Amino acid sequence: MAIPDYWKHTKAKAIPTTVKLQQVFYQYAIHGDKVIDIGCACGDVCDKLGSAGFYVIGVDINQDALRQADLSSKEKEHLRDPFFLQADASLLPFANGTFDIAIMQAFLTTVATKEVRHRIIREACRILKPGGYLYLADFGQTWHSKIYRERYINDLPLTKEEGSIIAYDQKTGDKAYISHHFTEKELVFLLVENGFEIEFFRNEEFTTRTGNRINGFVIVGRKG
Amino acid sequence: MAIPDYWKHTKAKAIPTTVKLQQVFYQYAIHGDKVIDIGCACGDVCDKLGSAGFYVIGVDINQDALRQADLSSKEKEHLRDPFFLQADASLLPFANGTFDIAIMQAFLTTVATKEVRHRIIREACRILKPGGYLYLADFGQTWHSKIYRERYINDLPLTKEEGSIIAYDQKTGDKAYISHHFTEKELVFLLVENGFEIEFFRNEEFTTRTGNRINGFVIVGRKG
Repeated sequence: MAIPDYWKHTKAKAIPTTVKLQQVFYQYAIHGDKVIDIGCACGDVCDKLGSAGFYVIGVDINQDALRQADLSSKEKEHLRDPFFLQADASLLPFANGTFDIAIMQAFLTTVATKEVRHRIIREACRILKPGGYLYLADFGQTWHSKIYRERYINDLPLTKEEGSIIAYDQKTGDKAYISHHFTEKELVFLLVENGFEIEFFRNEEFTTRTGNRINGFVIVGRKG
Repeated sequence: MAIPDYWKHTKAKAIPTTVKLQQVFYQYAIHGDKVIDIGCACGDVCDKLGSAGFYVIGVDINQDALRQADLSSKEKEHLRDPFFLQADASLLPFANGTFDIAIMQAFLTTVATKEVRHRIIREACRILKPGGYLYLADFGQTWHSKIYRERYINDLPLTKEEGSIIAYDQKTGDKAYISHHFTEKELVFLLVENGFEIEFFRNEEFTTRTGNRINGFVIVGRKG
């Protein structure tokens, strides 16, 4: 299970994008802000924000997704055209303090090791301006669901991390990648240990690519 | 900090009762059901359910609260008068399968040891009929709040359990009792390991006696 390779080489249409940008984002983003969508996939959020007058850059590790993003972006009318580029979220090609706001939606869940997640949040902090915001939406551990409870327990010997599950290719049934579901404590410390204060927090319920209902969090961190 | 003694001897008006019965209760309770409110304090919920036509018994360890419950109950018109009695939730004076539905609201939070909490849930299961329901509402660990985050960490050497905090007497400032805040995993296993299936689950936000906003859970377990 070479996880980074899966996300690098899978076809764009295999990338799940079920989590939608919540209204609370616009309480923190001001018209004309420089926004980066980290793990932008096919660029739906970037398109939306480009149309709304934000300066938007979408980054992803997956080239097929970026190609799709470019193509579908060119078909649309934007107030400001978004840019798309291939980059590793733990090593972004931007100077310190470039952006007003960074977005990560259902992205950290795809990062299978705690240590890399910490590097990614530190990196997001670095490229934000002082006082800039990180808008984070991701999946929560859903112990009340019998399906997830059993998967957390059964998959633990392979994932080695509580709350992680193995996701399968919907066509072939092969093991595809590890998806991590977070506890509130885990996400909160991921932010506060890497330069953010918690500005906003809400429990949500999301739907996964397979239609399961799942706990989720929407958090806004402020670069301290 | 002799915890059981605090709850046994404190004055009725010092018992917090900020969590209200949610509408979802009535999806599981049928008119005429036998209901027990475990940790009923001054009997507000019992009164409400007695007026609505349920056969209600409220139990609590605190005699002053039960006296208040009796007094204020007598002043009201009920379709069916509630009974109140003093009992230890881990050793209830009822036969197996007596009740259709049991209620525990912000009660487990006052039980400072995991082992006693397990005994209490087993006991609730025992006195329910097969297929009966446990309606449980309690506090969740609220790591996104700086106040609670610091209390969980600072109070840990004394409470010896993550997510527990020391609550102080609002008049004297003395240490009064330990309040435990749960994780979803903790509450789910408390139920499924002691005879319940999870029938309903919802994240909530409650207000504490001191006015703090706090995560909460409303769970309905079904005796399997």
